Parts: sequence; structure tokens; C-alpha cells
Amino acid sequence: MAPYQNDTLPIRVRVQDLLARMTTQEKISQVNQHLYGWQSYTRHGSEFTLTDQFKAHVAWGGGLGALYGLFRADPWSGRTLENGIPAAQSATVSNMVQQYVITHSRLGIPALIVEEAPHGHQALGAVSYPTNLGKSNSFDPALIAQCAQLQAAELAAKGVHLALVSTLDLLKDPRWGRSEETFGESPTLTAAYTQAVIRGFQGDLISDDCFLDHPADANRHIGVVIKHLIGQGDALGGHNAGTVPLGEREVREVYGPLVASIRHAVGVMAAYNDIDGVPCHANRQLLTRWLRTANHFQGLVMADGTALDRLTDLTGSVAAAAQQALTAGVDLSLWDDVYTHIDQALAADPTLMTALDTAVARVLAVKFLLGLFDQPLVSPSEAAKLPKIITASHQANAKLAVESMTLVKNNGVLPLARNQKVAVIGPHTASIYDWLGDYTAPQAPDQFTSLTDAVRPYASQVCTALGSQLRVGVPDQDYRWLDEAEDCASESDAVILTLGGSSARAFDMHFLTNGALAAPQGNTDTGENVDLADLSLSADQLSLLRVIKNTGKPLIVVMVQGRPYDIRPVLAIADAVLLAWYPGQAGPQAVADILFGQTTPTGRLAISYPRSSGQLPVYYYQRHAAKNADYLDESGAPLLPFGAGLDYTTWIVHSLSLTHDLIEQRTAITVTAANTGQYDSSLPLLLFGRFRGTTVLPREKQLLATRRVTIPAGQKQTVTFTVPDTALTYYDAHMRSVLPDQVTFSVGDQTQTIITRYFHVKEN
Amino acid sequence: MAPYQNDTLPIRVRVQDLLARMTTQEKISQVNQHLYGWQSYTRHGSEFTLTDQFKAHVAWGGGLGALYGLFRADPWSGRTLENGIPAAQSATVSNMVQQYVITHSRLGIPALIVEEAPHGHQALGAVSYPTNLGKSNSFDPALIAQCAQLQAAELAAKGVHLALVSTLDLLKDPRWGRSEETFGESPTLTAAYTQAVIRGFQGDLISDDCFLDHPADANRHIGVVIKHLIGQGDALGGHNAGTVPLGEREVREVYGPLVASIRHAVGVMAAYNDIDGVPCHANRQLLTRWLRTANHFQGLVMADGTALDRLTDLTGSVAAAAQQALTAGVDLSLWDDVYTHIDQALAADPTLMTALDTAVARVLAVKFLLGLFDQPLVSPSEAAKLPKIITASHQANAKLAVESMTLVKNNGVLPLARNQKVAVIGPHTASIYDWLGDYTAPQAPDQFTSLTDAVRPYASQVCTALGSQLRVGVPDQDYRWLDEAEDCASESDAVILTLGGSSARAFDMHFLTNGALAAPQGNTDTGENVDLADLSLSADQLSLLRVIKNTGKPLIVVMVQGRPYDIRPVLAIADAVLLAWYPGQAGPQAVADILFGQTTPTGRLAISYPRSSGQLPVYYYQRHAAKNADYLDESGAPLLPFGAGLDYTTWIVHSLSLTHDLIEQRTAITVTAANTGQYDSSLPLLLFGRFRGTTVLPREKQLLATRRVTIPAGQKQTVTFTVPDTALTYYDAHMRSVLPDQVTFSVGDQTQTIITRYFHVKEN
Repeated sequence: MAPYQNDTLPIRVRVQDLLARMTTQEKISQVNQHLYGWQSYTRHGSEFTLTDQFKAHVAWGGGLGALYGLFRADPWSGRTLENGIPAAQSATVSNMVQQYVITHSRLGIPALIVEEAPHGHQALGAVSYPTNLGKSNSFDPALIAQCAQLQAAELAAKGVHLALVSTLDLLKDPRWGRSEETFGESPTLTAAYTQAVIRGFQGDLISDDCFLDHPADANRHIGVVIKHLIGQGDALGGHNAGTVPLGEREVREVYGPLVASIRHAVGVMAAYNDIDGVPCHANRQLLTRWLRTANHFQGLVMADGTALDRLTDLTGSVAAAAQQALTAGVDLSLWDDVYTHIDQALAADPTLMTALDTAVARVLAVKFLLGLFDQPLVSPSEAAKLPKIITASHQANAKLAVESMTLVKNNGVLPLARNQKVAVIGPHTASIYDWLGDYTAPQAPDQFTSLTDAVRPYASQVCTALGSQLRVGVPDQDYRWLDEAEDCASESDAVILTLGGSSARAFDMHFLTNGALAAPQGNTDTGENVDLADLSLSADQLSLLRVIKNTGKPLIVVMVQGRPYDIRPVLAIADAVLLAWYPGQAGPQAVADILFGQTTPTGRLAISYPRSSGQLPVYYYQRHAAKNADYLDESGAPLLPFGAGLDYTTWIVHSLSLTHDLIEQRTAITVTAANTGQYDSSLPLLLFGRFRGTTVLPREKQLLATRRVTIPAGQKQTVTFTVPDTALTYYDAHMRSVLPDQVTFSVGDQTQTIITRYFHVKEN
Repeated sequence: MAPYQNDTLPIRVRVQDLLARMTTQEKISQVNQHLYGWQSYTRHGSEFTLTDQFKAHVAWGGGLGALYGLFRADPWSGRTLENGIPAAQSATVSNMVQQYVITHSRLGIPALIVEEAPHGHQALGAVSYPTNLGKSNSFDPALIAQCAQLQAAELAAKGVHLALVSTLDLLKDPRWGRSEETFGESPTLTAAYTQAVIRGFQGDLISDDCFLDHPADANRHIGVVIKHLIGQGDALGGHNAGTVPLGEREVREVYGPLVASIRHAVGVMAAYNDIDGVPCHANRQLLTRWLRTANHFQGLVMADGTALDRLTDLTGSVAAAAQQALTAGVDLSLWDDVYTHIDQALAADPTLMTALDTAVARVLAVKFLLGLFDQPLVSPSEAAKLPKIITASHQANAKLAVESMTLVKNNGVLPLARNQKVAVIGPHTASIYDWLGDYTAPQAPDQFTSLTDAVRPYASQVCTALGSQLRVGVPDQDYRWLDEAEDCASESDAVILTLGGSSARAFDMHFLTNGALAAPQGNTDTGENVDLADLSLSADQLSLLRVIKNTGKPLIVVMVQGRPYDIRPVLAIADAVLLAWYPGQAGPQAVADILFGQTTPTGRLAISYPRSSGQLPVYYYQRHAAKNADYLDESGAPLLPFGAGLDYTTWIVHSLSLTHDLIEQRTAITVTAANTGQYDSSLPLLLFGRFRGTTVLPREKQLLATRRVTIPAGQKQTVTFTVPDTALTYYDAHMRSVLPDQVTFSVGDQTQTIITRYFHVKEN
């Protein structure tokens, strides 16, 4: 037995032994993830066979580093319920692939099976969770960790090793089509969710201790590749993959908590964008110094899809692009034709072998860590767990869907009385896909409870109508729909109307080589590469809104959306407005449960909700300049502030007090939350800090911590936040991390200020 | 005679001698510019007396450093044609002020008289030039230098020493109310204009040679204080004085040419904004290292109005604000209550005296340089030149007004036939102030030729009508105006319709302590502190446009505007569209002369003209990212590109060729411009470069040089641009200035590429 095959040896030893045995071509193969995984197989009935394309690629490299998207099913891949891999056969197919790779690798090196799982595995029969922009409204990292843990179990039972999960992008400009993939605008909250996702998927697989120094444990593990590093939501104009001209202080203050949050992840994906001109994929300062040296990241850095090809626009040659990316710290490619040609770069500069060895070692280390060498195949017993995992996931998903929705208006109409005649109207009533967001697999009909069906048990009678398409100018808009909707509303006691957008992809659409939409059509107005200049709802939707309003019936609008549209016309005339975002397959049921008071609405906004494109940006942590805050024609303030949201019960937050511990160097902030209403419910408490007395412009405020408390009606709870002094620093003019002279802490409308010189509370 | 009184000694020696004689309070007085100058006097008929407030302030300091706005007349100052200083009495009043200051200063130190002159002296009887955003369309730095020279003569005859002139701000976001004060978006063009302004105002007063080493010459001089340093147009959201989170590479590449352009200015004003958190007024890196050490600037740095007060928001105390600003390199205050309390900062830190001495020395050096000590008063013969100067200025202004306008549509209707019946309609026909822009003094009625009067000589008959107010919701909108306008148009052979905005200030408006509008009212929608979220024209203007269009008469729209409004509805239906910006008092005549073919339109856009707020930003030198260029609902491209503009003649640009001189390290680009039409005219030629083969993302393109050529009909001219290799560099990942591998030069549609390794031309 060679040392690398000895599972009692530290991973570092096994990696070094294996690396020393490899040819250059075998090494190049390990850092490549070139294939579209769904092209690896053909299906005939329930029979699967490997394609020649797949076999040729394995032969090219003498093995296979990683395989992306074996299970991916969606319009881009062309994989459907009919020709894709059913959940129940996933382990069989992944085992077949793995067996082939191992037996066609001279040294028996297995391949990483890599899958998209931004809000559920993008594969047939998988659970579709709310998109991040909805999840973020929960302020419930614990539940998000639980859902991640269930996703990890689901992926493990299928033979997947790495889950690609978006968490790092911030919503700075909602014109961006990928807004739905963000946890909102807050670095603090996003960092908390990112850590929850990593903890959920990986457990304590990687800790501060260096994993290379230990043998792999006996278990198979799932690793998560967090994306994207970094700053993608700051693209100029909200253009997807646009340029990011941010300064170092801004990047370090805003994105520092996010870089820190991925310390224990198995992997991270570099972002398409540049930062102040330097592409992230060629940014050694970012990928090596900040990520590894300063932040002690131990995992691998994956390229984004075809991002290395884009580097050739700069470098003028494939060899130079390979050289730049390898040197910067990109360890594993994605679909590009650059890392497939590392041999050219090596020919030009043989010293590049050191950088290649480093990258290969990181890929191999992850394979050892996740158990690929020691347990390369999914056992039948593990595969058999899948149905139970899916069942448990649906339960967790139902809870998360409820928590992901935020009520922003209620004039008393909610919760709705039961056993009324209810109209369920709107462009989202027809298709599940308009509820799911981007990166979504085809759904079997029985996976979906429509909003109409979800409302039915609560109502004496339900009618339903489409009313409108989502976007103006859709060719098959039919104005008879408006009449049908009006009739339906008129005959009912209350109307539930969905408005918003859709990230649905259709099988007749065209896609770029990285899977982004090339030419969006029909109703699709969100998702990757579908950026919008104007946040207004379409004229057709606004017509529908007015027509329904004119029936005089109580009107509840449910916004199904992947970005904040301009909801001012909706707030002006609806009796209640629920922001449901893209809530996943459990979304319609969650909407019904909230509207009929089966549960309370507990979500809170994770963005500063804008009024219009004209007032962007409005995120809460802009620097506190003595600026002209308002426009002549528009307020400069967001329509709704970060943290806004209504509940059926009433809350009072009181008795905020502070104490500072000079030994432990931290502040304890205590506050009492009282549920003074009639409903048991949960309340996200948000602790903000305002810094004053600084040598650079302080920010308006920053989020320091959040806590979701569940309190029965009529009861109260005292909560203590502990904030280390290190969380109260900013970067001064010399980029030193220093304390401001004053910090004002606030929860709700309660505030208290400390003077940091002696950490005493300031008397007002 | 003390050495400082000896005009044969080098300025440095005189400064040092004088400084050594001064008390601390006298020094503090020299760096203060606290008063609103117009409060220094009262007028009774033609008699002027100094106020007690002025005398008390001189007594406080034992002298006076600088006096801002003695001649300022406008709604903020409350100085009118009746109670302000007539041009003819300016020298008398400034001499009275100066005499008082000198005789109440122990050491006989005169005061700097400082005046606003962004587009003409903001004083009674002064010439009102086009605002910069119009001027920039001329691509004619020589004419701008000539106008500056005339302004300098005008100011000198009045006893002014320092002219405050905006040139450095870039138009990055047209929501900003101060867009009109910019020379557009191009750093290259703006730098050329800035140098023209400095050369025009100052001649060769300051050269690369250190002026301190020489005696002052025998003449009185005008110095120009260029504003603002730096980055103010990059404020987030287009908010006036908003925060600027730009990175170092972006700042150095975009603003580097501008910092370099002010090397020979007598002064520069710091900008309100921060850069990546550091306020410009507390930015030693900017005000001292970049400006002086790297750029060899020799003049003084002035604070912007009350900007030092704003620093106390950060610092928490006046003393700390004074300390930060003095240390950073702010030499002279403006209206703040910070530098008046430098004694508090000195008490806290006596070593600050060194920084104070440095600032005082700079103020004194400028006073010696400009001749204040040796010729403190305006002689009667110099004052008597004013009428001739004004006459010459009006001639230059008329030429500049023509060159400042850009024709963007002409379906053949222009030039208009003469001796027709012409309707002159639009909200700008009533008041000169809507044509002038911000920072404008009251105008005597005889200074103004209205558009109606300017058209009259060209037409057989003219009718005129207001048609509409500028902004929606103006309370006194009167829809009978619309009927009148329709009648007027219907009776005419052609219609000239003005649309756009206004920076007019009214005497019943409220102002902030820095003179910016506190609460804009009525038609005012541009100028300092009047930012707009939506670039659309008001509904009332669009109604007027449609009503006039429906008369079926040939329709020429003249856009009078201080920012680019959304002119898509105008371009769609008008027969011709002329962008006149705010063209100053010669504007209406220039419009008439262009429309009737008395002269050709030769202006070209100095901005990338946007379609809407939703697609911002659109400036041409964004980095070349592989982004999603278009929005789902809107093109990402500007409506009109930088450099666009039509002429009555036709132009062909051909025969571009390159040669590189390896010894002189420069490229000569030769191109031929042919006037193939029927009109003598002028053509601005724009030389762009595209860099490719870089290690950071290159920009889409950059402007390298411009040349305005005047060519008779049927003739041609060959032009050679010389571009030094140093103009072809960018900052790489290590902030080293390096050459790209390739540069593609283009003029018009002519392009050629050089490989920089050997500077050979690339074969296509």
C-alpha cells in the first residue's frame, strides 16, 4: 500500500506522496473541471450509459479532477424529468461515474462531483427552498443551518461531494438580476448566514486547526463551495459581472466580515468582477494574501464558469491567463479552455510548476478530507436514506418559507377570516416556476401545491384567474384575462393578488456558455444576466391591480419577486401587502398559512427597500456625509428601512442597558422584548451601532448582531447581546483598525451611547 | 524699510521676514476667510460705507486674510441692482476695503479679495458666459483661455485678486445638481480646459520654476482658485457632497490628469466629499503628498464653504477639526467657525504652530505674487478700462455661446429659411435667468436679448408664448398657456420650442450657510443642492411638446438645460433638436444664429448622453468588463455617445496613419479631415485610445487628445496628433505605471493598432 492509500496518515503526507507520483498531465487534469456534467451520460428508460465525450475527457487527463453538474436538470442543460437523473437513481449514476474515473486513473484518483445547491439541489426530485433574498428575512441562521444540514444529507445520499452555494454577494443595486441570490445588503447578517450554511453543510469538518495535519476521519463528507469572492453585487449600474471601482477601505470594511465568514469552508468560488480594475480571478492579494495568509482559509479556490476564458481578453493569450490565475491562487477551473492548456503556460515558464503543484495539492487535500479516496462510492444503505431525508427537508423548508416572508402593510384585513369566498388572482397562479427563482430544476406536478390549492382548505369557495402576464409587451397577453380576474374578484369576499417578477427559465430560451440567459423572453425578468433598468411593475400588472381594487373587495397583495420592485402603487391601495420573494415550492402554502393566521408573519426586511431606480443606492451603511439627502423630486430615504416588517401580535422593546467588561473587552447590551399582543410569535431583534468621533467619515449605522426570539402572547424575554470591542472598530486614514470615540447602540427605538475612552455610558 | 516691504527681494525672503514679525492672532487672521463679503458694506445711492461687522472682524484679527464675495450679488446675498455694487464703482469699493484693512493691520498686510467667477464674475454688470457643461461642447480650449483672460482683466479692473472657478468636477452622474458646473465626463478634456482657464486667468504667473525664489514682478495679477479637489462628481447617488467610495487605481487614473492640470494654479479648493472615507479637507495624502510633493503645486489650498465645520461632525471638537485640516494642508478657510478657533488647537498642541506657519506663509506668498503689497489699490486708469474690457468680453462670449451648442437631430429643417412666420415658444422665453445657470448675478434688463428678439430679424413675423412651466406641479401652472402656445404655433411656418430645466434662484428662496439652496421651489431643478432622481422631462413639458407637434408645423426644440434630461420623446417627434445647455446671456442670440444658418453648429457632446436614470452610469471610460451590457428593459449604451453632434456641412475623416518615434518616445497620429459640404465650418477631432493586453481590466476607451479644425467648404486639412508614450500607461496590479501590449488609436471611424513592444503597427 502506497502512503497516499494509507488512511491512518495525515492528509498532508498522503497528498505529498501522491503528488510526487503524478505526471504533469495528471496534475493538469486535477485542476480542471471542464465538462458540463450532464453531458456525461445518456438515459434510456432507467438505463444510464457514459458518453464518449466523458470517456474521451477522462482519457485526455488520465483521470478527472472534478465533474460539474452531473445531476443538473434545467432548460440550459436540456435535462428534463424524462431524460435526466431521477433522485432515486442518483447514487447509481454517481457510482458509475466514479468507478469509471478511478479505474481509468493510473493512480486511482477519484473525481469531485460538484453540484449547484443555491436554494436546494438543482436536480430532479430535490427540495426547492426559498431563494436567499427571502431566507434572509428570517433572521434565523439556526434554521438556515438546519436546512443546509438536510441538503448535505440529500447530496451525500446521491454521491455528491461539493455543493456550490451563493452567500457572499450583497444586494447593493437591485437592478442586478442576481439580487435574489443575495442575503440582502448587510455584511453582518450575510456573514452570519454564511457561517450557518458552512456549519450546516460541513459540521466541524474544518476548524481553526489545520486539517492537513490529521488523518481523514472514516466518514464521507459534503463540502461547500461558497460564492462569490468578492464584491459582485457592487457592479456599476447593476450590470451582471460589471466593474467594481471600490476603494480598499470600503472593500475591507464591507467585505471583511464576509471573507472572515468563509474561513472554514471547503471551497470558495472567485467572482467574475474586478475590484478597482484587478479581476478577482487574477487577484493574488485577494485569493492568497487576504483569504489564506490573513484569514487562514484552508480550502480550494474554484473559478467561476468560463471566467478564466474572460481573462484572455486582458492577457491576450491562454498561457498568460493560466499563468495569472494559477499565480493568483485559482486552484480549480470551471468549463474554461484555459486550465486545459496549462501545458502551454508551463512551456513558457517552467517555474509555474510550483504554483500548479500548490493547486493540485489543494484539490487532492479536499478529496482526502471528504473521504473520496477511502469511501469513493455511495453505499446502498446510504442511498436508501434519501426518501426520509427528503421528507424531513420538506418540513424544514415549510418552516423556512413562512419565516422568509415579510408583511409590510396590514390595515386590519389580516389575518383573513376563514370560510369566506376567496379570489386567488395573479400571474403567479399558473406556474410553480414563477415562485422558485433561478437555478431551479424541473418539478414533478405532484411536488407543487398551488396558491389556489393552498387557500382552498381555508375558504368556503375559491375562484382563480391569471389576470395578466408579468411583463409589458408579452406577445400572448390576453385582455380577456383582466375580465376574468374582475369577475372572479367581484364574486368573492376577499382577493389575494400576486404581483412581482419571475426567474423562470424555459426550454426554448438561449443560454450563454456559462448558463446565463442570452436573451430573456416572456415573463422572465430576474436571475443571472437579467438585469433591469427600471424597478417599476409593468403597466399590465398595475392595470390588473387597479381593476381588482375597483371591485371594492378587501385586497391582499402578495409580492412574488427576486428583487424589490417599486411597490408604492401597491402600498397605496392594497389593504395588506406580503413580500413573499421567491419562496420555493413551499411558498404558496406558506402564503396561505400566513394570510389566514395559521401562523404569524415574522420576517423582517434584509434590505433597505428602495422607491425607484432613480434613488439608488439606499443601503443603510453608507458613510454619513453632510450630503444633500433628498432629491428635488424624490426622497433620498428608502421606502422601508432595513429590518422593517409587521406581525399580527404587537411588540414592545424596552429597558436597553449596557455594561462593558474591561477584562474581556466586550460590551453586553441587554434589552427586553415584550409580546403585548394576542398571538404567540417570534421577533428578530436587531442591534445597530452608530460610530461617531472618527478620523474618517463614519457610516450612518452598522448592524452589530441579531437575535430571533420566540415569545408567547402576553410574555416577555430579556436578551443580552455581547459585542467584542473588535467589532466596534473602523479603518482610519492609515488603514489601522481603531475604535471611534463614541458608539451609540440601538435596538428598536432604544438607544444608549458609550464613550470608548473609558467605556462609560454617556449621560444624555 | 523692512525686508518684507522690499520688492526687489525674492518672495520667500519677504514671506519669512513678515512671518517672523507676526503675532499668533495676526497669523490666525491670515488663514481666515470668515466673512460674507457682501456684508462688508452698505450702499446709499452711490455712497458706500463699511459696516461695523466688517470693522469688528478686522479688529478681531488685527487685519484680514481674505474677503470672499465683496461683489457677490444674487438671491443668497440679497444684493440686487439697487443695493449692490455697480461694475463702475467696483474699484472704488475694493480700494476702500483694502485701504481700511491695510491701515488697521499693524504690519500693513492687505487682504485677498476673492470672488466667484465660474462662468463670469457673479457681480452686477458682469458678463455671463455659458456654464461649463455647455462650454465643454466647443472642444476649444483656446477660446476658453481667451474668455478667461478677459475675465481676469475684468476682475483686475475691479480690484479682485482671486477668482473661484469650477473646472475639476466630472459629470459621472447627471442626477447631481452641479452637473452644469462640469466640463463633462472626460478627464482628458477637462484637464485641457483647466489648463486653458489657468493660462487665461494667470498667463505664465506660475511656471515649473518655484515662484518663491524670485521677486514679484511689478504688475498686479489675478490668481485663479480651481475647484474642487477632488472627485465630487463621483458622489454615490448623485447626492450633492455625497460619499465617494472609489479605489486608489480609479482615483489615480481618472483624476490624475486633473491634479496634474492645476500644477500652475495660484489656488485650489478642497472638495466637500470624502474619498473612500477620508474627507478631502482632512486628507494629507491628497492635499500635501499628491498635490505638492508629487505634483509640485505651489499655490494655496482653500477650504470649501463651511466644510471645516462639517469636519467637527467627525472629530467631535473644533480644535481637532482645525488640527486635522491644518495638518492635512488646508491653508485658508471659508466661512467656517473652525479656523477662527485655531488658538484652541494651538493650546491643545503647541507643535501645530509649524503647520499654521506653513499655511500663513502660503497665503502671504500668494499676496506677494499677485502684487498686493506693492500695488494694493486699483489705479483710476486701470479702473477706467472696464467698459472696453466688457465690450470685448461680450464679443468673445457670443462666439463661445455658439460653440457651446450641439445639434443632435436635423431631418433637413435646419437651417431655417428666413422671412417666415416663426413661433418662439417655451418656458425659457420669459426670463433670462432660466438661461444662465447657477452662480449668477441679477441682470439689468438691457443686458438681455430674448430668444424672441433674437429671432425677430430673421423672421417676417414672430409670435411667442410660454406654453408651460418647467416642473410638474408648479402651483400657478395655467393651462390657458397651452392654448396660447397652440394658437401661436398654428399661425406660424415653423416653431422654435425651448424645453429643459432651470438653475434660477429667486429672492424669496431659502439658502444654507454655504449658499446652496435649502428648499428649491418653482421651476428651479438644477444647481447646487438641487439633485434630481428622475431625468425625465416634466409631464407639463411633454404635454406642450405633443400639443405643438400636433399643429403639424416644422418643430425645432432647443434644450436649455444644466444636465442631460431624457430627450427620447423629443428626438422621436421634433424635426431638429439643439442642445443649448445654459448658454449665458449670449445664448438666445447664439440659438437664433445657429437655427437660421448665420453660423454652423460646431459643438460636440462632452458627455455620454444617458437615456434615463435607470441606466446610470454611462460614461465612456468604464472598465471593459465581460458584463451583461444591456438591461432587459433598456439598452446599456448611452442615447448619444461622447463626441456626437451634427453640422450643416458634411465631414469625412480619412487616411489615419501612425508613426512612432523611439527616441522621443511618442506616437504621431495623422489624419485628414475634409469638409465635403456647402458650409465653412469647424470640426472637433477626437483621438481615442483603446488599450488591450493589460494585467488589470482595461477601459472601454480613453480620450487621448482633441483638436478643433476650421475648414472652408470643399477643402481639407491634415492634422497630426502627438501622443507621448507616458499618456499610454495604466496602473497595474502593483500600482506601477506600465504600457499595455496594444493600443488602438481611433479618430472618427478610422482606427489603427500598435504593438507597444516594438511600437510597430499591427497588420489587420
